[in-house]
Amino acid sequence: MDTAERPYFRTHVFCCTNVRPPGHKRGCCADGGSEKLRDYMKVRVKELGLPATRVNSAGCLDRCELGPVMVIYPEGVWYGYRTREDIDEILESHLVGGRPVERLRLAPDQVPAAG
Amino acid sequence: MDTAERPYFRTHVFCCTNVRPPGHKRGCCADGGSEKLRDYMKVRVKELGLPATRVNSAGCLDRCELGPVMVIYPEGVWYGYRTREDIDEILESHLVGGRPVERLRLAPDQVPAAG
Repeated sequence: MDTAERPYFRTHVFCCTNVRPPGHKRGCCADGGSEKLRDYMKVRVKELGLPATRVNSAGCLDRCELGPVMVIYPEGVWYGYRTREDIDEILESHLVGGRPVERLRLAPDQVPAAG
Repeated sequence: MDTAERPYFRTHVFCCTNVRPPGHKRGCCADGGSEKLRDYMKVRVKELGLPATRVNSAGCLDRCELGPVMVIYPEGVWYGYRTREDIDEILESHLVGGRPVERLRLAPDQVPAAG
């Protein structure tokens, strides 16, 4: 696959904002406040002046039980997050510093902790 | 950036399905039937049995004038498409064959043709 071309966005963040009916067994990212957290991330990206960085909403990313979740491309790093402080850490460490936030990162085979 | 980890999705497609009010100067991907085309792509991916491939909706990808648009990660290849035949070609050439569809591909600096 030819991927040598300069990417359109240097960093492309997709935040799941899917909404399910109350009581759905998988839950949904919106239950965890994903829309407001996405809005916060968009504002902070603009304030930080991060170049060629886009924060998007996405439909269901199919990792609902770990949500709210986001995935950052092209690196394909996934996070579960809960708070503005989590977003701040992802911004500062990953987007600005180039270091993934290991405490929030989702492993490819990660499943929810038994509740 | 550590990207050596196995990705959660081998191929992650984001189709813009943003809706704007009629008459908006930038238009929107929904005007070009992006929701139905995304649905078609989802069905065909399932029928083809493509492993670890996800077709998602996304909010505005900010290339409205070239829409409907999609971006495929991790390779970061963008397409403008209009028809089911366009989707079929992207599926067969890019997702199955690993060869981007040059006639539909958007360059990083691509702007709309003068109308």
